[in-house]
Amino acid sequence: MTPQTSTALHLSGHSIIAGEQVTGTGRTVNGWNPASDEPLEPAYTLIDEAQLKQATTAAAEAAASFAALDPQTHAALLESIAENIEAAGEELSNRVQAETGLPEARVTMERGRTANQLRLFASVVRAGDHRGVRIDPAQPDRKPMPRPDVRQRKIPVGPVAVFGASNFPLAFSVAGGDTASALAAGCPVVFKAHNAHPGTSEIVGKAITNAVGQVGLHPGVFSLIYGPGASIGQALATDPAIKAVGFTGSRMAGTSLMVAAAARTAPIPVYAEMSSINPVFLLDGALDIDESGLSDLAAAYVASVTGSSGQLCTAPGLAFVPRGAQGDEFLAKVSETVSATIGQTMLTRSIADSWNAGVEQLSAQTGVEVVGRGAPGSTRNAPAPVILQAELHHFTGNPVLHEEVFGAASLVIRYESLSDLTEAVSHLEGQLTATIHCTPEDHSKAAALIPQLEEKVGRILFNGWPTGVEVNHAMVHGGPFPATSDVRTTSVGALAIERFLRPVAYQNAPEGLLPQALQPENPWQLNRRVNGVLDSQG
Amino acid sequence: MTPQTSTALHLSGHSIIAGEQVTGTGRTVNGWNPASDEPLEPAYTLIDEAQLKQATTAAAEAAASFAALDPQTHAALLESIAENIEAAGEELSNRVQAETGLPEARVTMERGRTANQLRLFASVVRAGDHRGVRIDPAQPDRKPMPRPDVRQRKIPVGPVAVFGASNFPLAFSVAGGDTASALAAGCPVVFKAHNAHPGTSEIVGKAITNAVGQVGLHPGVFSLIYGPGASIGQALATDPAIKAVGFTGSRMAGTSLMVAAAARTAPIPVYAEMSSINPVFLLDGALDIDESGLSDLAAAYVASVTGSSGQLCTAPGLAFVPRGAQGDEFLAKVSETVSATIGQTMLTRSIADSWNAGVEQLSAQTGVEVVGRGAPGSTRNAPAPVILQAELHHFTGNPVLHEEVFGAASLVIRYESLSDLTEAVSHLEGQLTATIHCTPEDHSKAAALIPQLEEKVGRILFNGWPTGVEVNHAMVHGGPFPATSDVRTTSVGALAIERFLRPVAYQNAPEGLLPQALQPENPWQLNRRVNGVLDSQG
Repeated sequence: MTPQTSTALHLSGHSIIAGEQVTGTGRTVNGWNPASDEPLEPAYTLIDEAQLKQATTAAAEAAASFAALDPQTHAALLESIAENIEAAGEELSNRVQAETGLPEARVTMERGRTANQLRLFASVVRAGDHRGVRIDPAQPDRKPMPRPDVRQRKIPVGPVAVFGASNFPLAFSVAGGDTASALAAGCPVVFKAHNAHPGTSEIVGKAITNAVGQVGLHPGVFSLIYGPGASIGQALATDPAIKAVGFTGSRMAGTSLMVAAAARTAPIPVYAEMSSINPVFLLDGALDIDESGLSDLAAAYVASVTGSSGQLCTAPGLAFVPRGAQGDEFLAKVSETVSATIGQTMLTRSIADSWNAGVEQLSAQTGVEVVGRGAPGSTRNAPAPVILQAELHHFTGNPVLHEEVFGAASLVIRYESLSDLTEAVSHLEGQLTATIHCTPEDHSKAAALIPQLEEKVGRILFNGWPTGVEVNHAMVHGGPFPATSDVRTTSVGALAIERFLRPVAYQNAPEGLLPQALQPENPWQLNRRVNGVLDSQG
Repeated sequence: MTPQTSTALHLSGHSIIAGEQVTGTGRTVNGWNPASDEPLEPAYTLIDEAQLKQATTAAAEAAASFAALDPQTHAALLESIAENIEAAGEELSNRVQAETGLPEARVTMERGRTANQLRLFASVVRAGDHRGVRIDPAQPDRKPMPRPDVRQRKIPVGPVAVFGASNFPLAFSVAGGDTASALAAGCPVVFKAHNAHPGTSEIVGKAITNAVGQVGLHPGVFSLIYGPGASIGQALATDPAIKAVGFTGSRMAGTSLMVAAAARTAPIPVYAEMSSINPVFLLDGALDIDESGLSDLAAAYVASVTGSSGQLCTAPGLAFVPRGAQGDEFLAKVSETVSATIGQTMLTRSIADSWNAGVEQLSAQTGVEVVGRGAPGSTRNAPAPVILQAELHHFTGNPVLHEEVFGAASLVIRYESLSDLTEAVSHLEGQLTATIHCTPEDHSKAAALIPQLEEKVGRILFNGWPTGVEVNHAMVHGGPFPATSDVRTTSVGALAIERFLRPVAYQNAPEGLLPQALQPENPWQLNRRVNGVLDSQG
């Protein structure tokens, strides 16, 4: 018997606070298998606010020692978490599948992405550029006043509260991007488990807890709590020990955290990734292709809409298709393709119910027609994918047509001209992505759209589809409200670490009191900016 | 007759909106000479909300073309503003002195700082590191999926509303740090003039307006408005065209802007620098000096408290002095020194009145005693500097002793031990600075204090005084609330530019559509991060 297969036997059904199992005093919740529509064991006990305080207090106690670690140790923690998650093997994969209805291949890919993400952050932490070291050495002879020695580095903001998403039970959950980037910055994490995948959360929470122990850190560096959704979330976001919030989920839940954090005596940053319909603009040239090309393009669109049951933050909920024969032909292919799809089980009963309600509401709006609809899947929670269409004036005149319907649905808008598109874009809310399909003859139109799109989105793609977010150094998974709460950053990719850092300057510090990152001999071999010029360590 | 001396003749008394004089429809306000306690001509007309809309609309119209400029042109604008301010010469200096009561030498120094700051930002813009370019090139052969080409750059957030401070009529006002960093980032600025120095504001506003014209930019890049304080401020911070706010001033006004910005449908960042008492910790070794050394130290403390009438954000409002003979002797010297001071005219009547009320309230608190008090100056608004003292338990138990009294006042707390200091620090609110005076034998105590201070302040100084903020690459003029509204940044120094930028990624963009910063041939010769590694252009 391998250690992996024994994990399930040990699912405790309790929170892990600073390394200790804590039995919640509140009611219990069970995971739920959305395919069989049945509960999963064990029941998870929900903590109360006094128990929450144990977690935030431990995080505050761990903050100083965790902040002070050298880059190697921070990196080792991240790598150890990645190893432990991989070691959880089939047990983890099976539990994810049972709790989410996601197919094995997707779960395997997501686990790989989660581990790679932790290793990417480890490499960034080792290089140490995130410390943002700037040194302006003293000039004792400067007139009229000597110039002081001023040295700046970025330090962790302090304990971070993270709320996981339902749709990425690994990559945006317990050891997901927010946790990984907060730990990489040197911030303890108090993680509020998503009640849709409690068992997955516990397995990953143990992987992190074990890594904290293996690296020999203060156990308050990480806590995993199960609590009653909204109320414990508000308590967490307003706890004085918490210095920043990471969140992925609905616009309603995200904005309620923003409001709570802004109402604190000392407001804190909230990084909430919420709502996006990810418009796709098909320009004329991109459709000036043969029938087989149009089929492929339609298939790719439908695949991006329906993949993972459409439960992706970057799913294309909106597509602009030119009027004319090629556009008609493309839509005919889309209709054909989507009609051949079969609904996949959605993550939870309530998500499937919300999707049904959202599609019903959208379909009922004036001018909205069906392009094509697939067949429902065999489970209760596998509604039929659908693609709808409407006229531009319906879209610009009706806010309902701008709302995200989380799941496999998309709305096509037919357009005549560039000015139709600029008109449409001017009505768009903030988005994670926008996508332009174009050929060189469309470039002048694309060039006119791009500056307008830059004001609305965090990422502009060309001749592809927005689903499938690379985790790398250059990615931006962000954008203006309501895509996110904070346009200045990203929740995916290396830049995400900077969300949890703040600069501190040291003036005329005696050498013996300088932090290592700032010492003259540069013991951590960091790239540093000296008098404004990068001093690269190669 | 030189152009400089003719400027005063041309003070219009009106707002400058997108290059045009606009006569406000509201009441008028006059500048006021705080030394003579008399109004200054001309009267300034205050605009209404419809007129404000002209400014924000023009800023929105200018945003795209201003954002798209090459680094040379952005830098040229900043340098042109610096030149125009210097060219305003004596006329400007005289008006500043008349409106603020600040002495000529201070005004000359501040003008130099303002121009140098603009030139520092120009040099940063030319180097272009603030664009934060990251490139992860495509890997078409990666399995299982090809890796896309992803390129990130930072773009301006959009039009910025800036509110000037009363205490730096040049360096933190119309062409001050917030304006300079917003323009450097490529954001149009709508500047709300501080009604305490309207003439100074107009002269500098013209310098900027002329520079915008000289460089050939859209006039909406800059507007200077005069309006009724709080109401126009709220309208400006909630205008949909405005994408960020820079503010320096009182805690009350700053928090009201934070609340207004957070309540927008799409909240925006507010960078408010508000309130700080800048604790100074004198450790034993630093006082283990002879009588002449103690005199010098006392003189330096009193000078930092009383300089510019104490009207500096970083003035040391709090000093921790050890019990014992050396501490007693130091305080005797402080008493002697401050008793010999004479009050200098404060910036405005209301600031002087607030100072009087603040000192009266502080003096009336249980346990607060006078260490020494100077003589009032000869004008109405030149109250006598004062240094008070209290016991540690009074300080930790009474929030009034933590409040900033803006002006030449400071509170001394006597302490016994390191644990007294850590206890005191644990009660401190967020601060711009903390200062430690120490010798090598104090280093273990200092090392214990530093991590605790890092959580509370933006800058830690050693063996000096916090007033006199260097404008350089490494400075941090920031800190936790209420020092500022946003702990992630600084309002002085090169890092300030980053407040007004946001990242955007471009995925698989055709070369012809890539922004110049991201083009393969690197036409702007920027330092770029390729696959996470800095590719320095030297």
